[in-house]
Amino acid sequence: MSLPNPGQTDRTSINRLKKRSVKDRDEMYEILDSTILCHVGYVESGQPFVLPYGFVRDGDRILIHGSSGARFMRELAKGIPTCVTVTKLDGMVVARTTYDSSMNYRSVVILGAAEEITGPEKNSLLEKVSEGLIPGRVREVRTSTDKELAATTLLSLSLEEASVKVRTGMPEDGEGSGTGVWSGVIPIRVIADEAIPSDEESETLGVPESVKAFVKNPKA
Amino acid sequence: MSLPNPGQTDRTSINRLKKRSVKDRDEMYEILDSTILCHVGYVESGQPFVLPYGFVRDGDRILIHGSSGARFMRELAKGIPTCVTVTKLDGMVVARTTYDSSMNYRSVVILGAAEEITGPEKNSLLEKVSEGLIPGRVREVRTSTDKELAATTLLSLSLEEASVKVRTGMPEDGEGSGTGVWSGVIPIRVIADEAIPSDEESETLGVPESVKAFVKNPKA
Repeated sequence: MSLPNPGQTDRTSINRLKKRSVKDRDEMYEILDSTILCHVGYVESGQPFVLPYGFVRDGDRILIHGSSGARFMRELAKGIPTCVTVTKLDGMVVARTTYDSSMNYRSVVILGAAEEITGPEKNSLLEKVSEGLIPGRVREVRTSTDKELAATTLLSLSLEEASVKVRTGMPEDGEGSGTGVWSGVIPIRVIADEAIPSDEESETLGVPESVKAFVKNPKA
Repeated sequence: MSLPNPGQTDRTSINRLKKRSVKDRDEMYEILDSTILCHVGYVESGQPFVLPYGFVRDGDRILIHGSSGARFMRELAKGIPTCVTVTKLDGMVVARTTYDSSMNYRSVVILGAAEEITGPEKNSLLEKVSEGLIPGRVREVRTSTDKELAATTLLSLSLEEASVKVRTGMPEDGEGSGTGVWSGVIPIRVIADEAIPSDEESETLGVPESVKAFVKNPKA
């Protein structure tokens, strides 16, 4: 019950953005825009590390931010080779045999080197990240202070070299898989539950619009 | 809104299984046992690759299987350094500032080298993988054929060197984050919807017990 052809390990088979069809590109954007978490891989002394990060797409790049103190962010900011993978699990594909069973999923594998964003655009791009994670939230809170900006590292990674893999639909039951056995798909999705206020003040204020909208239609 | 300290990139700070407290170990098992997808990282010519795979825990190791034809599986079977990361996103932590905002999550980062499982135990361990993904399914289907076994590569990775990171609870609103602003948490979870039969035969047969149980209590 493995993921069929999950991503590509052959770099030459990674599609260049320019060569990608509009349909493919739209599918890639849809996967990225509906997901919060990515898994970022990098190498240190031959050892790969894979860490989860929140991310947001901005045109033909993704933005990842984190604490300036994090070693991981400092390493990535050097522009070393990285791989960022985004995966959505859409369902269990339950075939008539375990061999033919699988999963429905969509994934994007991005290769490249991250670039650190500094200078005047950093603030507005950080707001874009916040806005991308919970749309509408930025205008409900105060703007970030210089100290907060300095404590945050912002990285961008181009979507130029990326691969999209998708498995959808029903099981493909092979011959000899037996009659009298059920096969089908179990759909899987992510939902948000009602928001929980942190304190009395928040309880009194009531849930803000941005949070209400997220609960109704969560990224995840 | 990044994940606070997501995993450890300093190998020396990865906890050894033997040193882990029972509580920590139980938490690690719970994260692994309630999740279907992992992200597997490996290096080829200095380039990291991160790919999604289904996995199952078996004692103090995880099992990953895939097509024998997949280059990725062949590379991993060589015992090269790998990193397998499992992440559960539990909620959006919505603070009074974007800076203090975060995510609730649980993750396990496992370092090591995979070992290929061959010989007589391969069949029973593959059944354990199927059983781990959808409990009860194995006894509803026929046993795997020799041809199917040969077409599948099974890898194991020890949990000896693993790191657990967890963020739970409410935002920690810093000073000067403003009054009159809501803060709290949006819980996020994965659910399964009603199973969809693939054909008339399956429709007539009705949803099997294993699938019913998964829908009620999905791993994901």
